[in-house]
Amino acid sequence: MIEIFDTTLRDGAQGEGINFSLQDKFAVIRALDELGVAWIEAGSPGSNPKDAELFRATRRLSLKNAKLCAFGSTRRPDTTPEKDPQLRRLLEAETGAVTIFGKSWDLHVREVLRVSPEENLAMISGTVAWFKAAGRFVFFDAEHFFDGWKENPDYALAAVSAALDAGADTVVLCDTNGGSFPGEIAGGTAAALSLAGDSRLGIHAHNDAGLAVANALAAIEAGCRHVQGTIVGFGERCGNTSLAALIPSLELKLGRACLPKGKLERISEITRRIAETANVPVPAAMPYVGSSAFSHKGGMHSDGVLKTPRSFEHIDPVLVGNDRQLLMSEVGGRSAIAERVRKIDPTITREHPAVSALVEKLKSMEAEGWAFEGAGASFELLVRRELGRYKPLFRILAYRVMSEHPTGESIACSHAWAKVWVDGQDEIAAAEGDGPVNALDGALRRALIRFYPELEQVRLTDYKVRVIDGGAATAAKVRVLIESTDGPGAWTTVGVSADIIDASRSALVDSIEYKLIGDIERKFKTYGNAD
Amino acid sequence: MIEIFDTTLRDGAQGEGINFSLQDKFAVIRALDELGVAWIEAGSPGSNPKDAELFRATRRLSLKNAKLCAFGSTRRPDTTPEKDPQLRRLLEAETGAVTIFGKSWDLHVREVLRVSPEENLAMISGTVAWFKAAGRFVFFDAEHFFDGWKENPDYALAAVSAALDAGADTVVLCDTNGGSFPGEIAGGTAAALSLAGDSRLGIHAHNDAGLAVANALAAIEAGCRHVQGTIVGFGERCGNTSLAALIPSLELKLGRACLPKGKLERISEITRRIAETANVPVPAAMPYVGSSAFSHKGGMHSDGVLKTPRSFEHIDPVLVGNDRQLLMSEVGGRSAIAERVRKIDPTITREHPAVSALVEKLKSMEAEGWAFEGAGASFELLVRRELGRYKPLFRILAYRVMSEHPTGESIACSHAWAKVWVDGQDEIAAAEGDGPVNALDGALRRALIRFYPELEQVRLTDYKVRVIDGGAATAAKVRVLIESTDGPGAWTTVGVSADIIDASRSALVDSIEYKLIGDIERKFKTYGNAD
Repeated sequence: MIEIFDTTLRDGAQGEGINFSLQDKFAVIRALDELGVAWIEAGSPGSNPKDAELFRATRRLSLKNAKLCAFGSTRRPDTTPEKDPQLRRLLEAETGAVTIFGKSWDLHVREVLRVSPEENLAMISGTVAWFKAAGRFVFFDAEHFFDGWKENPDYALAAVSAALDAGADTVVLCDTNGGSFPGEIAGGTAAALSLAGDSRLGIHAHNDAGLAVANALAAIEAGCRHVQGTIVGFGERCGNTSLAALIPSLELKLGRACLPKGKLERISEITRRIAETANVPVPAAMPYVGSSAFSHKGGMHSDGVLKTPRSFEHIDPVLVGNDRQLLMSEVGGRSAIAERVRKIDPTITREHPAVSALVEKLKSMEAEGWAFEGAGASFELLVRRELGRYKPLFRILAYRVMSEHPTGESIACSHAWAKVWVDGQDEIAAAEGDGPVNALDGALRRALIRFYPELEQVRLTDYKVRVIDGGAATAAKVRVLIESTDGPGAWTTVGVSADIIDASRSALVDSIEYKLIGDIERKFKTYGNAD
Repeated sequence: MIEIFDTTLRDGAQGEGINFSLQDKFAVIRALDELGVAWIEAGSPGSNPKDAELFRATRRLSLKNAKLCAFGSTRRPDTTPEKDPQLRRLLEAETGAVTIFGKSWDLHVREVLRVSPEENLAMISGTVAWFKAAGRFVFFDAEHFFDGWKENPDYALAAVSAALDAGADTVVLCDTNGGSFPGEIAGGTAAALSLAGDSRLGIHAHNDAGLAVANALAAIEAGCRHVQGTIVGFGERCGNTSLAALIPSLELKLGRACLPKGKLERISEITRRIAETANVPVPAAMPYVGSSAFSHKGGMHSDGVLKTPRSFEHIDPVLVGNDRQLLMSEVGGRSAIAERVRKIDPTITREHPAVSALVEKLKSMEAEGWAFEGAGASFELLVRRELGRYKPLFRILAYRVMSEHPTGESIACSHAWAKVWVDGQDEIAAAEGDGPVNALDGALRRALIRFYPELEQVRLTDYKVRVIDGGAATAAKVRVLIESTDGPGAWTTVGVSADIIDASRSALVDSIEYKLIGDIERKFKTYGNAD
């Protein structure tokens, strides 16, 4: 078994444009635990107060598969671990495991740390020993190990030995600058293996020469049994080893298990969910999990793959939970859509004219910027409309949203009114809000609640905005995703428009309709069962 | 010298979302020629009439470094080359060189092509010989060579021999499905080398397991001297070998020349230009040429790189025409901030109290959701305010933004007015827009243009919205990033608020102020020089 260690929340968060809120971090931890990675490095509590808060909050978390780990450095020069506030805070995070990084390249010791080679080794062994004495499981990240090994192998190996002798449970060989080649990784790993034995070695690679996955594989083939990376590949500069690109190769091609049984087929979905949390889309061309990874555009490729899938697919996409797409014909899309339609009406087959109509509708909507992959509730409403199984439960007759400055003390910057029609009656209501969408949401619900008191239980839990084509600046289209809950259920809806208010209105209306239709169907089913 | 063969216009155009107009293709050809690649595969004139037109038009092109090549397949079964219309059209393209692809995996011969193994070999040798007799330089792409070599090595090598014996100038070993490992590539290449000699072998890799660059390197180390790929990495499914990620490693680390002298430092610029032509941004984290490839966010990394660049950079970014960036963020440190402050006031050192004040200010602003790493212009204004080098150039006295439904025909859904004060005078103006932010932007500029006519040249080129903490749903904070240009210059500003209108207003004001202050300083400098 290869031990998977994800550092999306620590090294991943060092990537440009990657920022996680506390709530985002919990979402990432839950997703990684669901996937079944062994370890999650969740932050640096010693140097970052927000991460300290995170670790306090995680004590109440119960995880199924993963264990949490906190990251910090060796002690400062010329002091002791107990006198170093960074180390004390790292201990106070009360995680079962810590990662301590230390210098193994003499250039860094001389020119960046500016201490003697001996003091650096003492910092490594003293810090590791202190955490072992406190009962922690200790990972030692040998920073710049491969650059060090190339320039001064004796010193690089001395740093590894210092950590091992002080009791480090696993020593992780890092290609911190990401510029090494697979042959160099194999050589450095073999040298460290003679000190550590394979059960105590790991690899941490970066992608600065486009070789992170190859380097991780080379280290594993040379004897490492622990591998660090980030699921999407986020990280400093060009990123870390993308675990989603590595794990399928290890499991499917080299027969090395990485995740609990049955989890590999969740990897596409979970990788996309984590990317979504960071508000960064998974690159379409990403190996195994990207939306284009099994897309065939050339006519000969589509033809070949229909005759014999493995003629143009190196693995069966089902194994990683991804889908084949035939871009030149809608044959690929059809089956997926028919599958979804059957959930609403099981009598409808792949050949039903409604399926063709939906394929066409979806194509033209996607060309306009709609994306239903993360918005199942809106997709279900679309299917119902196409099948004629839909009756609007309310209409918005009019609304106005205003944002103004100055506001005085009597009204918020943003406020709105909305007038709705339900079954021959109308109602108008107003609300203030934090922002125009919040105000419109408030006014709409207040007007509807007289007719549909069950809306009282509905809350919006997430709101995401993505500009689809930045080229036209503020006139670009926006896609809004809204996540709602009524306690037991949760659903996501989407709206697209050049106007963010209009896109939000569309997603808000879908959210309310989905809730009301669901309640009606449940009632109907209950009666049905009672008969 | 390694021979670089770019297939952006052929295999690259098979990538999902990649489409080139005739004009785009010319732009790509000119850019690749400027970079100095040896070969450009520009299309498939035998099967695509638009490509036939392209090749007719390219006859008037005079290229400095590159030669053009046209792509086609072996002849159809049971006919002769002269009777195959696809081959006749390929000949009529009148390029000096053609690429002929043929099957080398017996599975494809049996199940996709559905001909006898002997007929496939006859198709290869007959087609190659026909083009040699017509005076063409012939590349033979041995499609699926590595998959074939793994399953039926004798047949895969027989296909290579058939091409060589018929006179193919270079045989290109293809990992068409992109699922092979570097060790397999090295093994297959060595086997083919025993037939061809190293001067006649090339490699064509795909990235389906994240190993395209590693596989190209493995083949070159095993003896190939010709390498195919696409500069950005476009291509079927997960793409081809990215030449921009491979060439710098070959030239800078392995001492293998690929481009004419002095061209490597143009690779970032030209890669970005080609991506721009395809309307696809270069991924920020792309090795060597991405905008984040030399970005440092962590404080220790910024500190280290300022002391000794190679402490956290595997090469000098100047060598590939890229730039170092020290990102402003809470995980960044004092050194990065001091470096940026010095650009505004060179007398300020790392120890200056203004630097500490800025570090604290930045921390508290980031805790509120601000992020300056992508918004250098707003950061500069923040620095000026802290240093007391700032005087507001205008004030917004009041504004109102409205979005309403229904709107009739006389006004857009979103419209706004804004009243500004400049140096004792005020002005009010109104505008409609695609969305409330677009409307506010219009009203603000119209009001200001009387005082600052230079704002006429300013356009917004990008607008990004990020919800910072989705937890409070539509009441969550939003961060808005606005990118602006005045022709020669481009700058990015940021705004944060619970209200998207207010956050956008803040970023719009920064954008306008940055432009106006910059113009004033340039004028001042010009006067200063004239004295």
